[in-house]
Amino acid sequence: MGQINELQHRMGKKTIKLVDASGNPVVDQEVSLTHTNHQFLFGSGIFDAVRVANATDTTENLSYLEDKMDKFFDVFNFGTLPFYWGGFEPEKGNPKTKELKAAAQYLKDRNRNMTVKGHPLCWHTGTAPWLLDMSNEEILKAQFDRIERDVTDFKGLIDMWDVINEVVIMPIFDKYDNGITRISKDLGRVGIVKEMFAKTRESNPNATLLLNDFNTSINYEILIDGCLSAGVPIDAIGIQSHQHQGYWGREKLEQVLERFSHFGLPIHFTENTLISGHIMPAEIEDLNDYQIPEWPSTPEYEARQAKEVEEMYSILFKHPLVEAITNWTFSDDGAWLGAPAGFLRSDNSPKPAYNTLKRLIKQDWNTNLTVKTDSDGMLTFEGFLGDYDLVCGDKKATLQLDKNSETVKLVI
Amino acid sequence: MGQINELQHRMGKKTIKLVDASGNPVVDQEVSLTHTNHQFLFGSGIFDAVRVANATDTTENLSYLEDKMDKFFDVFNFGTLPFYWGGFEPEKGNPKTKELKAAAQYLKDRNRNMTVKGHPLCWHTGTAPWLLDMSNEEILKAQFDRIERDVTDFKGLIDMWDVINEVVIMPIFDKYDNGITRISKDLGRVGIVKEMFAKTRESNPNATLLLNDFNTSINYEILIDGCLSAGVPIDAIGIQSHQHQGYWGREKLEQVLERFSHFGLPIHFTENTLISGHIMPAEIEDLNDYQIPEWPSTPEYEARQAKEVEEMYSILFKHPLVEAITNWTFSDDGAWLGAPAGFLRSDNSPKPAYNTLKRLIKQDWNTNLTVKTDSDGMLTFEGFLGDYDLVCGDKKATLQLDKNSETVKLVI
Repeated sequence: MGQINELQHRMGKKTIKLVDASGNPVVDQEVSLTHTNHQFLFGSGIFDAVRVANATDTTENLSYLEDKMDKFFDVFNFGTLPFYWGGFEPEKGNPKTKELKAAAQYLKDRNRNMTVKGHPLCWHTGTAPWLLDMSNEEILKAQFDRIERDVTDFKGLIDMWDVINEVVIMPIFDKYDNGITRISKDLGRVGIVKEMFAKTRESNPNATLLLNDFNTSINYEILIDGCLSAGVPIDAIGIQSHQHQGYWGREKLEQVLERFSHFGLPIHFTENTLISGHIMPAEIEDLNDYQIPEWPSTPEYEARQAKEVEEMYSILFKHPLVEAITNWTFSDDGAWLGAPAGFLRSDNSPKPAYNTLKRLIKQDWNTNLTVKTDSDGMLTFEGFLGDYDLVCGDKKATLQLDKNSETVKLVI
Repeated sequence: MGQINELQHRMGKKTIKLVDASGNPVVDQEVSLTHTNHQFLFGSGIFDAVRVANATDTTENLSYLEDKMDKFFDVFNFGTLPFYWGGFEPEKGNPKTKELKAAAQYLKDRNRNMTVKGHPLCWHTGTAPWLLDMSNEEILKAQFDRIERDVTDFKGLIDMWDVINEVVIMPIFDKYDNGITRISKDLGRVGIVKEMFAKTRESNPNATLLLNDFNTSINYEILIDGCLSAGVPIDAIGIQSHQHQGYWGREKLEQVLERFSHFGLPIHFTENTLISGHIMPAEIEDLNDYQIPEWPSTPEYEARQAKEVEEMYSILFKHPLVEAITNWTFSDDGAWLGAPAGFLRSDNSPKPAYNTLKRLIKQDWNTNLTVKTDSDGMLTFEGFLGDYDLVCGDKKATLQLDKNSETVKLVI
């Protein structure tokens, strides 16, 4: 039972007094408990939800996308939607609020336990091109207005945001001019993080706010240290892990976890990539520079991907501070750089990695048990944190298992 | 006169009304003005001052050291004294306060315009070994006590401190266990900087406080950004530039200046090294690992050193934010790593670099002029900022030229 001990932080124990509608204890009855949802967030980028929810595609394509979405809902309880400013508001004053609201609502309707995250509120890449015509003062005001508008509009549907993305490189990003790099030079790295978090927090005080970066070096450590010392209310540290150039491996992964654990904050793996094709040559510095006509998914590499997924997710799930893992690309269809980075192939067929992850989430890290209430209607059970269905005869109730071990009364 | 324009930030203009002891204007008189001291700090590590001031050596050695000191005073107005905790207080409770006070006083006595800096108050290298027996809480208290005691004891003699040294590497320094790395892990980088600056500021509110590092990468930029955002009262950014592996050259130097200018803070080059011998191989990562029996100074390399000194000091003197340059090693005698890093050879003979720097400071960047007072006793002159002797006939006065251009009345 070594595994159980290593996962003790993911488990809870609860004592329930089961009573019927009249308040009488349900004594000496068999009760089945089924884990229906993890407290841990297993997620994916799920940008297709926008097209599906708004039916903005051909019938054939929509049917294809709906099949893809079904496979997403079979495994995940967490989805990231795109709020890249340039795409969200290509024309100033005409944001795609309606379309994104429909997408978030669709995700919640399909799974009431779904957590939806917006990505990102502030980033130099993919930002609104019309910022370039503004003064720096105007850009900053527009960025504040954008945060206030969108975070307010989506409150209740989206209460988790990647507030600001890739700040380490932001002021020295030199591939092209953009409004956000301009203001980050004025404000400094910690300064821009501070401003964006303050505005987001003001607009949704209860939201979970992330800082997110692909830089996992000492640079990012010092940036976080600086932000926390400056009082920035970071709720979780976002770590990207696009591994197109090969799986980090246990050693690097554990080293990154150790270094970013010093802050004692929750850690989210926000953008994970493990591919099922040949790996990108190590000499490519900016992943965007690797452009090839075809990057096939092969059986051999799909087996490797599944093995890497199993090891990586297991290491992260065992770490007490990790609270979320997002696989960036759910399907090879439309994947960034054309990489075979999905859990599904382009034809929606599941790769071994998909089945591996489904097994981990739905079997290995799952609790399904039958217990018997005692002569006072009491039962005690231990299991993975999250949501449960409790069934007793033809009666059913739902309950949540968390770290609070107080006895609860449940009416069935 | 291109050079003059590039150095406009180093120049001032002053109008003086010259009056005699009875208050009558000194009319139509020739007046000579001689620049005796730069506002800019040209300095060197001058640890030998401790032995000289305390006469703790043989008569022969003291005479040798005094000759060395004379050559120091001929050029410099700024000296750094050693406050490495392990050397300053090898036995807990017995600090070398008396010896260091004598050294600082000696420097001030020899040149009333001398600025003395203490280096450093907090550093993981060379720290007190007896910290290892303490709990982290006790180490932090001892470090605070040390700062309060020493900064208070030296107030008036030393009003400039390298508060904390090499923080980028501090918590990940793994060559040997030490008390300061231990507490830096607890506090975080920005946290330890904040605490040490707060205590130093409290102990001497008017002191000039530096953060100092050899890391000139983005790491140090983000650290400074974080510290400033966290409200740390940094007065000047200290940059080490030990160039045992070859002169950085104009391009890197200007790039470093540009990057660290963003903060708008004064910049001090705190530990400069340009050697007059063969350069250390590039593959050596920690300079301390290069141990050779002899590292000779040669005529060829001395010429190169002089050229590099001329270029580097000229670039730094032209940059408006640079306010100080310390050549770390004044003489090859006792130089770090046995490198021929001094401006003097081991026999105290000046290398070409010494003469080059003396020429820059005392001739090229110097003002010596004769003007005539008008019929109201007024004279106006322009020159390098700093202290001046004004001589008129057999009368002499001193005055300070700064950026304040108000007319002053001077009694002669």
